This record gives sequence, C-alpha cells and structure tokens, in this order.
Amino acid sequence: MTTSATNRQILLASRPQGEPTGDNFKLVETAVPALADGQVLVRNHFLSLDPYMRGRMNEGKSYAAPQPLNEVMIGGTAGEVVESKNPHFKAGDKVVGMGGWQEYQLVDASQRGVLQKVDTTHIPLSAYLGAVGMPGVTAWYGLIKIINPKAGETIVVSAASGAVGGAVGQLAKTRGARAVGIAGGADKCRYLVEELGFDACIDYKEHKDLKSLSAALKAACPNGIDGYFENVGGMILDAVLLRANAFSRVAMCGMISGYNGEPIPMTYPQMILTNRMKVEGFIVSEHMEVWPEALKELGTLVATGKLKYRESVAQGLAAAPEAFLGLLKGRNFGKQLVKLI
Amino acid sequence: MTTSATNRQILLASRPQGEPTGDNFKLVETAVPALADGQVLVRNHFLSLDPYMRGRMNEGKSYAAPQPLNEVMIGGTAGEVVESKNPHFKAGDKVVGMGGWQEYQLVDASQRGVLQKVDTTHIPLSAYLGAVGMPGVTAWYGLIKIINPKAGETIVVSAASGAVGGAVGQLAKTRGARAVGIAGGADKCRYLVEELGFDACIDYKEHKDLKSLSAALKAACPNGIDGYFENVGGMILDAVLLRANAFSRVAMCGMISGYNGEPIPMTYPQMILTNRMKVEGFIVSEHMEVWPEALKELGTLVATGKLKYRESVAQGLAAAPEAFLGLLKGRNFGKQLVKLI
Repeated sequence: MTTSATNRQILLASRPQGEPTGDNFKLVETAVPALADGQVLVRNHFLSLDPYMRGRMNEGKSYAAPQPLNEVMIGGTAGEVVESKNPHFKAGDKVVGMGGWQEYQLVDASQRGVLQKVDTTHIPLSAYLGAVGMPGVTAWYGLIKIINPKAGETIVVSAASGAVGGAVGQLAKTRGARAVGIAGGADKCRYLVEELGFDACIDYKEHKDLKSLSAALKAACPNGIDGYFENVGGMILDAVLLRANAFSRVAMCGMISGYNGEPIPMTYPQMILTNRMKVEGFIVSEHMEVWPEALKELGTLVATGKLKYRESVAQGLAAAPEAFLGLLKGRNFGKQLVKLI
Repeated sequence: MTTSATNRQILLASRPQGEPTGDNFKLVETAVPALADGQVLVRNHFLSLDPYMRGRMNEGKSYAAPQPLNEVMIGGTAGEVVESKNPHFKAGDKVVGMGGWQEYQLVDASQRGVLQKVDTTHIPLSAYLGAVGMPGVTAWYGLIKIINPKAGETIVVSAASGAVGGAVGQLAKTRGARAVGIAGGADKCRYLVEELGFDACIDYKEHKDLKSLSAALKAACPNGIDGYFENVGGMILDAVLLRANAFSRVAMCGMISGYNGEPIPMTYPQMILTNRMKVEGFIVSEHMEVWPEALKELGTLVATGKLKYRESVAQGLAAAPEAFLGLLKGRNFGKQLVKLI
C-alpha cells in the first residue's frame, strides 16, 4: 500500500430544508497524506448508515454538535489497516472506528478507543457495524437497562426490521418476553416473525389512523404492553401509550418521524401518569460502561446464530447519499451499509 | 358520646360532564349505626380535599376504581375517636384515615392501617392531612425518589402554592437545590418566595402563550431545569421541556389541566430524547414502603418550623363541594381542608 493513494470523501455541502436530498452532499477526491508517528491508515471496507446522522445534519441544539459543513460526513466504519506507524496496529488488522463517509481514514491511534481491533474468525466484519456494534449495543441498553423485560411481559419495538429493532426483539425473546414488532410492509413483518422469531408484527402501512393501529396493537398484545422501544414517534407512540400497562417502560431511542422538523406531539401524556410509566431517553455513546458486557452477549449470540440480522448493502462510496435517503424513508431492510471495496 | 348520633354525608350523585358542579354532589343524613366488636367510631374534625378526587369522579380506566355513585365521596380525614370496641383505640385518640366526606366514620380498626393514631403534641392535627400526610409524602416521593435533586440543581414545581407544591420546593431547598415555583397569581408567588423560601416564582397567569412562559422560565432558571415536579400538564409542561437540561427528570404527579377530559398533548416529546430525560408517573399510595422514612422527615421539619404550609379551611361539611370546585380552579391557597366541628 502507498500513501500516494487517492481518497474519495463525501462532505456535507448544505443543511437540508426539511427533507434532505442528494444535493446536500458532495463527493470530493483528495490525496491520502503521509503518515506521522502514531498514525494508522485504514482502508474502510464498510460504511455504516444510521438514522442519527439525520439529526447531525441540522443546525441548532441537540445532544451532539452539528456535522460541520464541508467536512467529511460522520459515520462508523469497518476496514483493514493498510499502513501503520503505531506499535499497536499492523497492516492486515481488521478494525472498526468512526472513519466517516470516505474510503481511507488516517487515524492518530495513540488516542485510546478511536480504533478497535476486531476478530473476524466467527463474526463477519460488517456485523461490527450492526448487531455487534453501535446498533446492537443501542438495542441492548434500551431493552436491558431501561425496559428491563421480565419473562412473560410483552415488548413492542418500532422500526423493528432495522438494525436496532431486530436486535431488540431477539434480545427480548432471550429474556422470555413476548416480542411484537411494528414495521412497514408485509415482507418485513414476515421476515421478523418467520426468520427472527418475533411473536407478532404489525404492518403500520396498513393502518392509516390511530384507531386502526390501536386495534391492531390490541390484537397483537392481548395482555397489553409492558415495554416499548421507541424509534419512530408520532402516531405509533400514541397508539402504544393507549395500550400500555401499569408500570410499563418506554426507552426513547429515536423519533425518526420528526427528524425533518415537523412537530410530533404526544397526544396523551396523561397516560404516563395514569399508568405510572417511565419514559426515558438515551444515547448509547453516553453509556460506554455497558459496552463490554453488551458486546460480549451480542457477539456470542451472533457467533452462535442466535442473533440474526439482515443487511442492505449499497455498492461504492458514491451510492452512500442515496442509500442514506432511502434509510430515512424506511427503504432499507435490516442494517444499511455501504460497501467501499 | 352516643351511637344514636346523626351522621351527615356527601355522596357522589352524578358524574360530571366536563367541569364538575355542585349538582354532582348530594348531602344526606343517616343514623350512626351501633358499633360491632373491633369497630371504632371517629368524629372527623377535618376533611382533606385533593385534586386526585376529580379523577375518581370519572368513569373509565384509570389507576383507581371510580368513586361509586350514591356512595360517600372518598377522602382523607383527621379526627378523634369517640367510641371504641377495639383494644387498640380509645375515646380521645387523635386519628387519621380515609373517612370520606362525612362527619362520623365507623371503622373496622382490626384491619391494619385503616386508622392511624397521631401525636398532636408538636404537630397540629390538620397537618397530618397535609405536610405530614399524603400530600407531603407525595412531594417527598416525587422529589426524592424520582427527581433526586443534587445541590446546585434547579427544581421547578407547578401548582407550587398547593399542599404538594409547597413541600416540594422546601424539600428541594433542604437538598441544596434552587427551587422555582409556578403558581397562579402575585399573592401566591410572593408567599412562596417570602414565606416558604423559594428562589423564584412565575405567575403563569401573566403568560398567555408558550413563548412568554418559556422566556419567564429562562429568566427564573438561568442554568436550565434539572428536575420538574408536574402537577398541571399542558402549556406549562411544554414550556418546562423547552428549558430542560440534559439528564433532567420529571416526576409526573398530576395533570390537573386534563381532568375534565380535554386533550392535553405534549408538544415536544422529542425533548425527552434530545435531553436524555426521564419522565416518570407515580401514585404515592403504591409506595407505602417509603412512608415511614418520608413522614419522619416531614414531621421533624414541620415540628421544627422548617417546613411551612398554609391552609384554606372551609367551614362545615356542606361547604365541601364548593371548596372542592374552587380547588380545581386553583382558588385555594395551600392545603384545602374542610373543618367539620
């Protein structure tokens, strides 16, 4: 490998006004700079596309600083070390990090935690961006630490066929709970029940109003809802609250229905009181203390075939913007990746 | 005392359609029955009026069974034993219980906990219905167990001049937190700051829209809001969420603005996610395990003058419905009682 290689990168060119478009992104080429001491050059094999990136494209107050304009889009990556001036890494090491939307990543690997070596003997490299990575730990934290399901309880998850949602349902099953998914389309629902072992799935596209969705939830959750893993917001959250049991818990992981700035009011907040619910928002990167425990369980489950997942893989860096816009519209089926090599 | 006394009682005559009126109640006279073994006859001195009673007047799903029609309205009472066929009580004992809206209460005191003897040496009898009773423990549980304030944090409470709200602010001060009240009217705000030691108070009646209320909260809480004790709902909750800090906690105790069945949507539930908040509903009667600890602290604070309170006292059982309707409109100032003797 050589440091005179060309790197291709995707920058945030402008902030979206409402729904983002391909014009918000710009593909540029740059030379890969020479390595300084302590640095590692990584060829990214996979780029992870995740809903949180939509929030970063906005300006204004949120839990994280906005993605700066004209800089490489933030993102998790998995790849291979191609050159190293750091004693802890050598060419050929498989690594994951926050490489961003680009083909090469030059990292000062003396900062602890910026680059993690991973073992691909029993776990595919791409899984470290999904079930055995941030999405998996997100599912694990919200389900285990906030919802804390007990055997026999009913756990509902929205965006259930996504990278996080699929793991939530399967983890709930490992705790003896009933797992009910909410997803968009009959294909996704069939996959969740037949392949991932969910007990039931509701195709929200078949329910245009709250009454209809609420009736479907009643049928799928005859004993009510004890835990809800929230990825969506809006009408789906309203419908779940109307079926929530006393002492039920809601882990608020995302509200993708509001990412473009639309108001997404909660119609019946009094249910939180009436049902003595706990509703808790979280961001998995603020709970690094649980990652080792979570990754150990997730890795074992994936390696033994007990935690299944599906990937939607776009080919080539240039395909990333379109794949990301599709993810925001729910066009992905499972973990959305971009294969860069 | 004699068992041939006449008892006067107020029954729920009909369920309110929207806002309740005096016509929903009916005053009746009955004979006090003779005591059976194990029973105690109590002359109620004070009847406690509390917002939760409004919820009980409705039919339909809630955390508690509805108040049955044509039965004595539920309610906490403090009084004196006038006759006893139970070895644990004797005439002259001061007691608190759930005597309901009536002058006399015949209790099977062999059931543990239905009647509690209280010591009025250092604490007035009526305080056992307020600061050293259910409202005080409500304040204590929501503040200490859910909000868990740290020194230097800012705690906001709505309906702050009520029996619960006043205790919330003063308890927050004992933990070194900044206490900010929201109340209706300049008199109440002055009282909270000058007499109860709140750091600031916002008169919500001076703020007709969210923008104005939000600006007032910003001024009163320059470091944001770390804990919110919710008694009201609606626009006040919306305004607080817009000023909530990361990792802030909301104890949902009541949503009086929705008791008549109006929808009271939460406009920005995504704030729960963005600020990684915890929002938790509770009912103090489900946490009996904390009552001894809470009552011990509350009793000591009241006896030593460190927990102050005010009472609005209506005179005579017949005045109870009007006093209750006034409470729902915020006309009370401090704990609303009815003096029955």
